[in-house]
Amino acid sequence: MASNSSNLDAAHKRIAAAYDPNALEAAGARLVSELADHMRHVQARETQVLNWADPEQLIATAASFLHQGAGSASSSSRHTQEATTAPDVETIANGVAQLAGEALARGHNLHHPRYVGHQVPASVPLAALFDMIGTATNQVMAIYEMGPWATAVERAVVNVVGEQLGFAPGGFAGLVTSGGSLANLTALLTARNVALGDAWSKGLSGRDPAPVIVVNADSHYCVTRSAGILGLGTQHIVKAALDDRRRIDANRLDETIADLRSRGVPIIAAVAASGATPTGACDRLSDLVEVCRRHEVWLHVDAAHGGALAFSPRHRHLVNGIGECDSVVCDAHKMMFMPALCAFVFYRNRAHRVAAFQQDAPYLFDPAAAHLTEYDSGIVNLECTKRAAAFGLWGIWSLFGPQLFADLVDVTIDLAKQFHALLAAAEDFETLHEPECNIVAFRHVPGELQHAPPEQIDALQARLRRAVVESGRFFLTQTRLDGRCVLRTTIINPLTTIDDLQALMDCLRELGRTGGTP
Amino acid sequence: MASNSSNLDAAHKRIAAAYDPNALEAAGARLVSELADHMRHVQARETQVLNWADPEQLIATAASFLHQGAGSASSSSRHTQEATTAPDVETIANGVAQLAGEALARGHNLHHPRYVGHQVPASVPLAALFDMIGTATNQVMAIYEMGPWATAVERAVVNVVGEQLGFAPGGFAGLVTSGGSLANLTALLTARNVALGDAWSKGLSGRDPAPVIVVNADSHYCVTRSAGILGLGTQHIVKAALDDRRRIDANRLDETIADLRSRGVPIIAAVAASGATPTGACDRLSDLVEVCRRHEVWLHVDAAHGGALAFSPRHRHLVNGIGECDSVVCDAHKMMFMPALCAFVFYRNRAHRVAAFQQDAPYLFDPAAAHLTEYDSGIVNLECTKRAAAFGLWGIWSLFGPQLFADLVDVTIDLAKQFHALLAAAEDFETLHEPECNIVAFRHVPGELQHAPPEQIDALQARLRRAVVESGRFFLTQTRLDGRCVLRTTIINPLTTIDDLQALMDCLRELGRTGGTP
Repeated sequence: MASNSSNLDAAHKRIAAAYDPNALEAAGARLVSELADHMRHVQARETQVLNWADPEQLIATAASFLHQGAGSASSSSRHTQEATTAPDVETIANGVAQLAGEALARGHNLHHPRYVGHQVPASVPLAALFDMIGTATNQVMAIYEMGPWATAVERAVVNVVGEQLGFAPGGFAGLVTSGGSLANLTALLTARNVALGDAWSKGLSGRDPAPVIVVNADSHYCVTRSAGILGLGTQHIVKAALDDRRRIDANRLDETIADLRSRGVPIIAAVAASGATPTGACDRLSDLVEVCRRHEVWLHVDAAHGGALAFSPRHRHLVNGIGECDSVVCDAHKMMFMPALCAFVFYRNRAHRVAAFQQDAPYLFDPAAAHLTEYDSGIVNLECTKRAAAFGLWGIWSLFGPQLFADLVDVTIDLAKQFHALLAAAEDFETLHEPECNIVAFRHVPGELQHAPPEQIDALQARLRRAVVESGRFFLTQTRLDGRCVLRTTIINPLTTIDDLQALMDCLRELGRTGGTP
Repeated sequence: MASNSSNLDAAHKRIAAAYDPNALEAAGARLVSELADHMRHVQARETQVLNWADPEQLIATAASFLHQGAGSASSSSRHTQEATTAPDVETIANGVAQLAGEALARGHNLHHPRYVGHQVPASVPLAALFDMIGTATNQVMAIYEMGPWATAVERAVVNVVGEQLGFAPGGFAGLVTSGGSLANLTALLTARNVALGDAWSKGLSGRDPAPVIVVNADSHYCVTRSAGILGLGTQHIVKAALDDRRRIDANRLDETIADLRSRGVPIIAAVAASGATPTGACDRLSDLVEVCRRHEVWLHVDAAHGGALAFSPRHRHLVNGIGECDSVVCDAHKMMFMPALCAFVFYRNRAHRVAAFQQDAPYLFDPAAAHLTEYDSGIVNLECTKRAAAFGLWGIWSLFGPQLFADLVDVTIDLAKQFHALLAAAEDFETLHEPECNIVAFRHVPGELQHAPPEQIDALQARLRRAVVESGRFFLTQTRLDGRCVLRTTIINPLTTIDDLQALMDCLRELGRTGGTP
């Protein structure tokens, strides 16, 4: 017992060092300088874009810091089971600065102007500061009383973003969750439960015919996945026909739905896209609203990418009608340039906010304060403990106003259009679509390959892309369009210039001359 | 067109201000000081625990900052549609500091030693610094190439935490996801797909009899919810009988499973708990492993709370056998004292890691680099874009070693046992269970209520709790045990002392004298 309590005394000392506000202050100051310096180098194109490394080697490197563990901030050796002394403030600050340096040197530099990759932005750096307020003090939600302020911040941003999308003030409801996949799952779960009233309690066993979801054929993979997760089955996804600009053909959607109805097939939802993944196409939502209302089918829009276009007077026409859809997903961590993750789900009719879930949790929901249930995020969210994911957006909006989101949308779409014009004017590049937003798909076809078999041109694109990405000179992506492999850029760093994109074309030409081997 | 490009020039200026590394540095320095000062006051008990406020009023306050929006950091008035000038560094730093002050003044102070609430810890403050590295530079995963370092860090911590739980090195697999509910859903989706090979593609329609999940009757609500989400139906949850210490009775589980089997009912999984929500009970996993293996039933353990006990030589016996279970959830944001969210899912047999999901996403998964698919988090995770949620844990482990996690488990469980002894010795408090870990449920029954009807004693607990919580003097929770309303504390702040808990008892007595009205 004496040994027991002396062990605990040592434990308390080590804990006091880790919780010391002086250590937070000293280490935080060092970290902020490191981060700002790093950001300067990255923005000035003085680093690689991606620091490519072999996965197993990199895992071993990450593990090596863990294994030196106790050694770095306490005086014990790594082989001592219990360290007996606690590290001082300076040791901790040095340790944090060293580890931060190691992490920054190996990261993916999305703030490098030559990052033109996935739909993950070079985020507004200051957003991280607001986010850290939540992380350092561990602000969370689930029930109102766990995070009154975190809840209030989320509600306030849900209101302003929802109104920007065109939902009727007071009539709609919304929530923030951890990412677009989870957001789409939540909305489709709601649609399932609304369409099949007893699916939550009885499950889907025994139903015939099987219910379906009708989707934009270019939908993000998470939509089909949702059918797999929700027990509907991925083979009960019906792909809606697209027009020549890769948008759902409203007339043919009407026919598809009418046909399903005539055969008595339950329809969970129709799923449209604003800023569909392959080329950023935006479904004509107003037309789809009309079709779906006529048939009383739930219309869900995955506007994870395109929702933010509603902030721009120049581009908001691309999401006309979004506020008339039954449910909408919009990711602030895409075209609102917030760091991951801050995904919104909106319901046009606020009565639907409680259709997704039911639960019995007496340790959480307090019957002595039933009037607070309306503010319990856990009621409407798949997540129970939930981070204060809207702090970054709240801070940036409060600092700069919504104009900044319009600015970010405008400059990136404008640059995408300039890039498209450059590509169209070049004989050795092939454009594949008129860019609707900031996604541009294209191919590099050097003169000698103009009459080569399509497979050869496909293979070149894939080789080129991998060579560019692993070189760290640029970061771009690829996809398949109508069966062909194509290069794909998302202009999602507002510091990217047309010169960077000209340089990308030159880089592809250079690598193309050696067949895509650097 | 001239107006168009001059508008874009102004946009670029405003963006340059928001992305300025000097602003990040100046504002970051201010924020770090604010945070450290706040932490000092909170740890010294100079603030309230919870800053209680009426929800609608607080939402209006949060919204007021949004509405002043552009005004605070740019020189435009809130009524100007487009701000024409960009804020300077000092204006931004002042704005961030002001907003941070507003947020900190309204938050829930989990680092106050008198926070003894939900299973959300007073997190290691320094973890927020490592987390901010990821947020400021927007490190994410989905595919390996989007975040090689973020992926490597996650893999490295998955390996060390999994090995600490007792999984066989090389044989198991794991992932990090956004919270315990999502983690349990993922594991149960895997179990569903393994039990019903074609459920992913065909769905559950047409199956008879309906498959079931057998669960610890004290399971977290997310387990029953998973049945609702996955199309199994919440009424197909079978509650396993508990023994007198609220642990699954292995013999009766054996009978339950045998009975289901004899009736041809498919069993998706048996779900045990390590650190069950009501009282922190830990199922005897080794016994359950034996039963489930005999019947070839998937054994899942929700060890969101209790998994971290594996770090403590004193307490690891409570999770004996955990490394023999088919799937395990363990939240680093509970008893490893990380900020939300960092939840692990482990599969004993690494072949099961790919059983949860399937997807077709040519813009993500690159057939030209198939050997990298193994490192694509999106293959095994419900989330596509995923934050670098393990940076905090990686940094803290690298700084302090795993000893810190043992320390945190040891001091909080030790204090819970001391508190239980205090309660047991007091005539006006009623203990309800021997605390197995750091959760203590109890009741305050003043002398005059010793013979009162149970409903009256129940009502007092609920009133007392609400009064204490809204007063900001302490934060504790409540639950129902065997139909009775009880008070519940989780000792999840390592700075809490026995004097704080003595003061909690005195506070309850004081409020009890006025019947729970402050």
